[in-house]
Amino acid sequence: MAFRTKIRVRFADVDLAGIVYYPRLFHFCHVAMEDYFREVVGRPYPEVVGAERLGYPAVHIEADFRRPLSYGDEIEIEVAISAVGATSLTWSFAFHRDGEAEPLARVEVVTAGIDLDRFAGRPVPDWIRSAGRGS
Amino acid sequence: MAFRTKIRVRFADVDLAGIVYYPRLFHFCHVAMEDYFREVVGRPYPEVVGAERLGYPAVHIEADFRRPLSYGDEIEIEVAISAVGATSLTWSFAFHRDGEAEPLARVEVVTAGIDLDRFAGRPVPDWIRSAGRGS
Amino acid sequence: MAFRTKIRVRFADVDLAGIVYYPRLFHFCHVAMEDYFREVVGRPYPEVVGAERLGYPAVHIEADFRRPLSYGDEIEIEVAISAVGATSLTWSFAFHRDGEAEPLARVEVVTAGIDLDRFAGRPVPDWIRSAGRGS
Amino acid sequence: MAFRTKIRVRFADVDLAGIVYYPRLFHFCHVAMEDYFREVVGRPYPEVVGAERLGYPAVHIEADFRRPLSYGDEIEIEVAISAVGATSLTWSFAFHRDGEAEPLARVEVVTAGIDLDRFAGRPVPDWIRSAGRGS
Repeated sequence: MAFRTKIRVRFADVDLAGIVYYPRLFHFCHVAMEDYFREVVGRPYPEVVGAERLGYPAVHIEADFRRPLSYGDEIEIEVAISAVGATSLTWSFAFHRDGEAEPLARVEVVTAGIDLDRFAGRPVPDWIRSAGRGS
Repeated sequence: MAFRTKIRVRFADVDLAGIVYYPRLFHFCHVAMEDYFREVVGRPYPEVVGAERLGYPAVHIEADFRRPLSYGDEIEIEVAISAVGATSLTWSFAFHRDGEAEPLARVEVVTAGIDLDRFAGRPVPDWIRSAGRGS
Repeated sequence: MAFRTKIRVRFADVDLAGIVYYPRLFHFCHVAMEDYFREVVGRPYPEVVGAERLGYPAVHIEADFRRPLSYGDEIEIEVAISAVGATSLTWSFAFHRDGEAEPLARVEVVTAGIDLDRFAGRPVPDWIRSAGRGS
Repeated sequence: MAFRTKIRVRFADVDLAGIVYYPRLFHFCHVAMEDYFREVVGRPYPEVVGAERLGYPAVHIEADFRRPLSYGDEIEIEVAISAVGATSLTWSFAFHRDGEAEPLARVEVVTAGIDLDRFAGRPVPDWIRSAGRGS
């Protein structure tokens, strides 16, 4: 069973048409990634960027937004690391809303692992590489 | 000469690593799209969504972020409508920073034209279709 | 016992100094107000602004931020309606962090009840006036 | 003549009622403070927090929002340092819209000067203290 985290659409997330402003959908993906670090990897991202000085900025993104999200919606975002490179992690996000067969949004984000002090690439550590296996 | 608009990276745009939080890069694209409506199309987006009740939510996105943006950076975003469908507009954004030969980021956003009262597709009006021609 | 709601400080909330960008603290207050409507008043704010066409924009604010919030912090915000006028509601927010005797932040927000279709003042309905009594 | 800076209300700034989400008004104040550092003090805030390691987080705020701001509005924010303490700066912001006699919003923000490496108070430097004199 893949990891899922809940997001509630807030007043600040929606535009004057009453639907979520699309840059916020990527913010939701980042929040879901943070939840994945805490719950699946077992090391909160604040600790990863803080003590560990390791960060994962986005370098490539593909996204499909099929149906809009409205104020008050509660969704679940399914998060997985779909590919692990030497230094990169590819994340897959699927947005699920109750009662809908298909995800309303799918996002793939390639992130580059960098040393936050030197801003240079850093190999994916084992404690990330082994996380989520068998889950 | 393609249309370009200036963006200054603000304190609120950067994260604790000192680089722009990637969802903000899409916000910059939206701001650039708003500037394009005002300057190239000749009808400000507030009027398009207001009086005209026509909106362009994003439905598909591809983005490459090659080099990070830092606090205080001033960039120019080149904006073009690269494809016009029956109801859709495809937008291309290239982020330029002085002294760099290649754009630091490229984003393509497919937007779907919808009637904001009925949330149904709406054909691209001529005053958008003809905008930017010869520019 | 007053109503409290939990907030987790996210990556997007902090600035390059690693502390929460202060406009986000007001966003937290708005999120806490939304939780109060759902949990205490018993009518979610999406329904209040949607079906009911009643909104509460802020008209006056006083805030004391005594100690900064950092990335990864989990806090509880205590929310109460501290005064009810003919059309206005005054909200009090106290930010609590585990292990600290005093709130790290206190915010008071006077909101004006308005009809969202006419943008004119609207009397506080009984279902808000009576909420939270004896709680 | 006091320093003024222009702000254009963007799509992302407004809520589903079509008016600016109030935490964004404080973001506008921060942007105006950044412009003041660059234009009046003569040292951009990116340099102040970067090279100088000096930051001004908000510690006390009072705000009056008299009339709402709508999508597409262009305003001028008048910025002044209204009081200088040993380590603190008090900022005054007045939001002006063309054709209106009175500011639509007034905000006062007390900021505490801190050393960003030690998170301890730091005296107001002369190059801030002397800025804006006679202006």
